[in-house]
Amino acid sequence: MSTTDWIAVDWGTSHMRAWAMTASGDILQRAASDKGMGSLSPDQFEAALLEQIEPWLRDNVLMPVLACGMVGARQGWCEAPYTQVPCTPLAADQMVKPDVKDARIAVHIIPGLCQQGPADVMRGEETQIAGFMAEHPHFVGVLCLPGTHCKWADLRDGKVLRFHTYMTGELFALLSQQSVLRHGMQQDAAQGMDEAVFLQAVNEAFQQPQQLSSALFGLRAAGLLQGLGAAAARARLSGLLIGNELAAAAPLWQGHAVSIIGDKGLSALYAKALQAQGIPVATVSAEQITLNGLRAAWQQLARSGS
Amino acid sequence: MSTTDWIAVDWGTSHMRAWAMTASGDILQRAASDKGMGSLSPDQFEAALLEQIEPWLRDNVLMPVLACGMVGARQGWCEAPYTQVPCTPLAADQMVKPDVKDARIAVHIIPGLCQQGPADVMRGEETQIAGFMAEHPHFVGVLCLPGTHCKWADLRDGKVLRFHTYMTGELFALLSQQSVLRHGMQQDAAQGMDEAVFLQAVNEAFQQPQQLSSALFGLRAAGLLQGLGAAAARARLSGLLIGNELAAAAPLWQGHAVSIIGDKGLSALYAKALQAQGIPVATVSAEQITLNGLRAAWQQLARSGS
Repeated sequence: MSTTDWIAVDWGTSHMRAWAMTASGDILQRAASDKGMGSLSPDQFEAALLEQIEPWLRDNVLMPVLACGMVGARQGWCEAPYTQVPCTPLAADQMVKPDVKDARIAVHIIPGLCQQGPADVMRGEETQIAGFMAEHPHFVGVLCLPGTHCKWADLRDGKVLRFHTYMTGELFALLSQQSVLRHGMQQDAAQGMDEAVFLQAVNEAFQQPQQLSSALFGLRAAGLLQGLGAAAARARLSGLLIGNELAAAAPLWQGHAVSIIGDKGLSALYAKALQAQGIPVATVSAEQITLNGLRAAWQQLARSGS
Repeated sequence: MSTTDWIAVDWGTSHMRAWAMTASGDILQRAASDKGMGSLSPDQFEAALLEQIEPWLRDNVLMPVLACGMVGARQGWCEAPYTQVPCTPLAADQMVKPDVKDARIAVHIIPGLCQQGPADVMRGEETQIAGFMAEHPHFVGVLCLPGTHCKWADLRDGKVLRFHTYMTGELFALLSQQSVLRHGMQQDAAQGMDEAVFLQAVNEAFQQPQQLSSALFGLRAAGLLQGLGAAAARARLSGLLIGNELAAAAPLWQGHAVSIIGDKGLSALYAKALQAQGIPVATVSAEQITLNGLRAAWQQLARSGS
């Protein structure tokens, strides 16, 4: 029976996931908890980690734990200063090691990336980018990582040259749940989305991105005047916001192949929106690619002998 | 001593204000309550009104009450169907009269305006526009009415030709109080705003309106990387949103004089932003102009003999 050689951790604002791994990168066990960075003070991280990984530890064996995500933020366990682009997405020598009480673990937190002009930051996505690069070492093009704060990264020669963040996901949540648009807005994402309505809105916003704020209020007015239904309102809101983002990010993706890394449903929307602009798109599962990135970080760490 | 000849009411989502008026338009008394449309069911409006105006009523005298605002919405006291532009802002023959139990009052609700393409609606602002037109009957140009949902209206020959609504105020509230940007954002509006920072952001957003969503996240990144302060973050957020709105509304206001009707502080920000684009601007007090509009509605009603 294989034993755990190292532990991979993806620790975001609202969740943490952990995997018991072999040296060759196979997954032995999985664990997850809702003790995300947002709900923990710095002195609570170690206990929250041990709750999940305790069964995988052995006496007198120092277990490397590689963690990415908001765990390395200023409000996290231990701040991992950003690495500045252009740079490779991972740098083993810049991981930070928080102090721990349990002598069986050595925790390494992967730093995020930053850009000074225009100011931008990421934490967690750099590990996904590294996972993607591990599979496509010679990739030249653009990665789109949809989510609460969608990132677009320009990659070449194994480096992240520049990136931009759009608040699309957070705007969708705020507008659909807390603004005047919540009236007459379908709240249940599981009910699916009318693709024609979505794509029509993508195209409108892509053509006239400066009219977003007016088009948003237009959803309310169309509900009152023209009977726009709750499902169509949700599809249009999503389309307007994603179309606006595509217009803003166009200088990055125009003329390039785009790969999308993210949640399956959201990635499919971005793929449809980009394909409607004539852009070839590949989609990649976020969980798989995050783990690939953590594997790449482990290999760097093992090589460096830390 | 003068007696009350009619009662003016401005009844919005969160507040109602009432004035006891003479036939010649003088104010005798004022009253206000926080029983806005949003907190009342249809059968509660009459009592909420009487709580404020009871002292102004007399036995055996039918008192006209003229009300504007969200009181006429579908979720209000009694729906006042929208009048469609192009049209005059007030049409006495289209006011609706809700059923009342108290025989001393005759309530008239002023309808809002609507536009079919692009779909848009207003309730309350039409009365402010009427108040403005009463003072400037030959005005040709653009009115800007800042607020939660900022309206821009194109006026000519005593009519509203078209109008557009921008969600600027609601976006500012959501982003400054509920998004990731709330971290490192000054919440107290009373502390004033750095005009240079505000205008710089107005200009950036005006030049690149399609980059709004990216510029918004940039506030967070600049706080983390470059020490952007909480007061400057608030000024930049306001400037980015207003600059974006100015870009979207440019086809309306370019080449025209603009008059701004609204809350004093917010109107001053819009005035500075427009003046920075070389546009001459006049500002008008919202309360005064609302009452002027209600006076104009009363005069129409009195003339029509209803």
